[in-house]
Amino acid sequence: MSFVPKDPDFDARVRASFARQTAMTSLGIEIAELGAGAIVLRMGYAPAYTQQHGFIHAGIIATALDSACGYAAFSLMPDDAAVLTVEFKTNLIAPAAGDVFLFRARVVKPGRTISVCDAKAFAVQAGREKLIATMTGTLMAVFGREAITH
Amino acid sequence: MSFVPKDPDFDARVRASFARQTAMTSLGIEIAELGAGAIVLRMGYAPAYTQQHGFIHAGIIATALDSACGYAAFSLMPDDAAVLTVEFKTNLIAPAAGDVFLFRARVVKPGRTISVCDAKAFAVQAGREKLIATMTGTLMAVFGREAITH
Amino acid sequence: MSFVPKDPDFDARVRASFARQTAMTSLGIEIAELGAGAIVLRMGYAPAYTQQHGFIHAGIIATALDSACGYAAFSLMPDDAAVLTVEFKTNLIAPAAGDVFLFRARVVKPGRTISVCDAKAFAVQAGREKLIATMTGTLMAVFGREAITH
Amino acid sequence: MSFVPKDPDFDARVRASFARQTAMTSLGIEIAELGAGAIVLRMGYAPAYTQQHGFIHAGIIATALDSACGYAAFSLMPDDAAVLTVEFKTNLIAPAAGDVFLFRARVVKPGRTISVCDAKAFAVQAGREKLIATMTGTLMAVFGREAITH
Repeated sequence: MSFVPKDPDFDARVRASFARQTAMTSLGIEIAELGAGAIVLRMGYAPAYTQQHGFIHAGIIATALDSACGYAAFSLMPDDAAVLTVEFKTNLIAPAAGDVFLFRARVVKPGRTISVCDAKAFAVQAGREKLIATMTGTLMAVFGREAITH
Repeated sequence: MSFVPKDPDFDARVRASFARQTAMTSLGIEIAELGAGAIVLRMGYAPAYTQQHGFIHAGIIATALDSACGYAAFSLMPDDAAVLTVEFKTNLIAPAAGDVFLFRARVVKPGRTISVCDAKAFAVQAGREKLIATMTGTLMAVFGREAITH
Repeated sequence: MSFVPKDPDFDARVRASFARQTAMTSLGIEIAELGAGAIVLRMGYAPAYTQQHGFIHAGIIATALDSACGYAAFSLMPDDAAVLTVEFKTNLIAPAAGDVFLFRARVVKPGRTISVCDAKAFAVQAGREKLIATMTGTLMAVFGREAITH
Repeated sequence: MSFVPKDPDFDARVRASFARQTAMTSLGIEIAELGAGAIVLRMGYAPAYTQQHGFIHAGIIATALDSACGYAAFSLMPDDAAVLTVEFKTNLIAPAAGDVFLFRARVVKPGRTISVCDAKAFAVQAGREKLIATMTGTLMAVFGREAITH
């Protein structure tokens, strides 16, 4: 499915908002690809963010997937909207073992208020991608004062 | 509901495993309270882990909630089990604005293989607790070789 | 937590809407208790709605839990709102074996647009209640034309 | 992704188990297509199973999606396994308005114990398919006595 963005300058708007997420910088997560309604984030293996067996912590994987869902949805919103995560659900499918991790999100249903996104996380090891987690996220567009207080 | 732990030394076992999660140290998350089937984690506000509006990133909140669910479940498992997160789902209810955050998890259903936990995140500001997120998590006990490869 | 309903006549409004859900009549689900932000539904064992082992189908349990969440949220909405389910997530904790099933839902966070509810399903057998499923649901209040087209 | 079934007779095994779900017969849900790790269910519009606005109840949509996920997973299990739903999560994307509904599920990750499936529900109206709901489901294979008591 391809989408027509309401804001032709969505690319700059998404990147500017992403750059304000200090969590992304701290975790070493960056934008690898960006389109209207779709995004790919990238993170290198980071020993500082593991669980007890040395794999990347499920919550950190979810953090990247949530940002991916949020910015996929945000790319299709009008330029005066802010985006909030209403909820997300993630299944951990395989240990997050790899040199690099990719997080691919796309909008399943864009909406005036509510958007739904799907995302998948992949571990890359020796050039091979392996699915490690899935997410479905529900995002909300908020406007005006509400966008500031959230 | 109160539970009888299979491992009388669950406290030491949980704390040792938690200490191996480098993600907890990096994010400044620590154990505030620990019982059989219940745990409270604590995190101070950390400017390095925010989203675009300066609140703690939803994924970081989920990271703490996931560890809380995992260790609540782990506390009731036998001493040769490892714990894996099968999936979790989190609703973001209010912005993560506060000086301190508390994450309270408890086991809803302990199981030989599958356990289910509920958790809630609270922001503490001026001494008042406010509910900011909920999680339901499904955890799995794994044994032997499987515990190592995950 | 107790709530002050925006519509003092919420009881009649909830019951009238519930009566229009033909699914509830067909499944034999009725309102056992109703308050502001909380509801209990009741269903007898129905051999016509089982899965392959003779227990009530997980989806039928979810149907009752979804209506319970929806009407708990609806009870706190203004009298010109319609309620839509945005999403729900349910954990099946024990087989739905029993003579009677109770579905208890309460609002966790009421909102102008988005409300979050928690619900639990219990099987009653020989007078003993057993937890069989949990749900977290996200509900949306819609107004005007949007309420009709949905 | 295509899968090699452990049981070459999975087709007969899935259909026999599906036929024992009285809920499917009562709701008018049948198997439209079946493969290894994938299934399509079909349901006609049924006025007896609506919510308050005359659309099929979200829980009934979830019932079909849950059976679809369950049998997609079951098709890949060995012939002595029983399948249980651990949990599912569904997003309602558009009203369930249509003459016919299709429920397409496929296995995302087959596992010895835990399998994960994705499913989508479509409303068909005037020959056009419209996405109305998504589900992610977690299923468990159980063996022996446990399979009977569940």
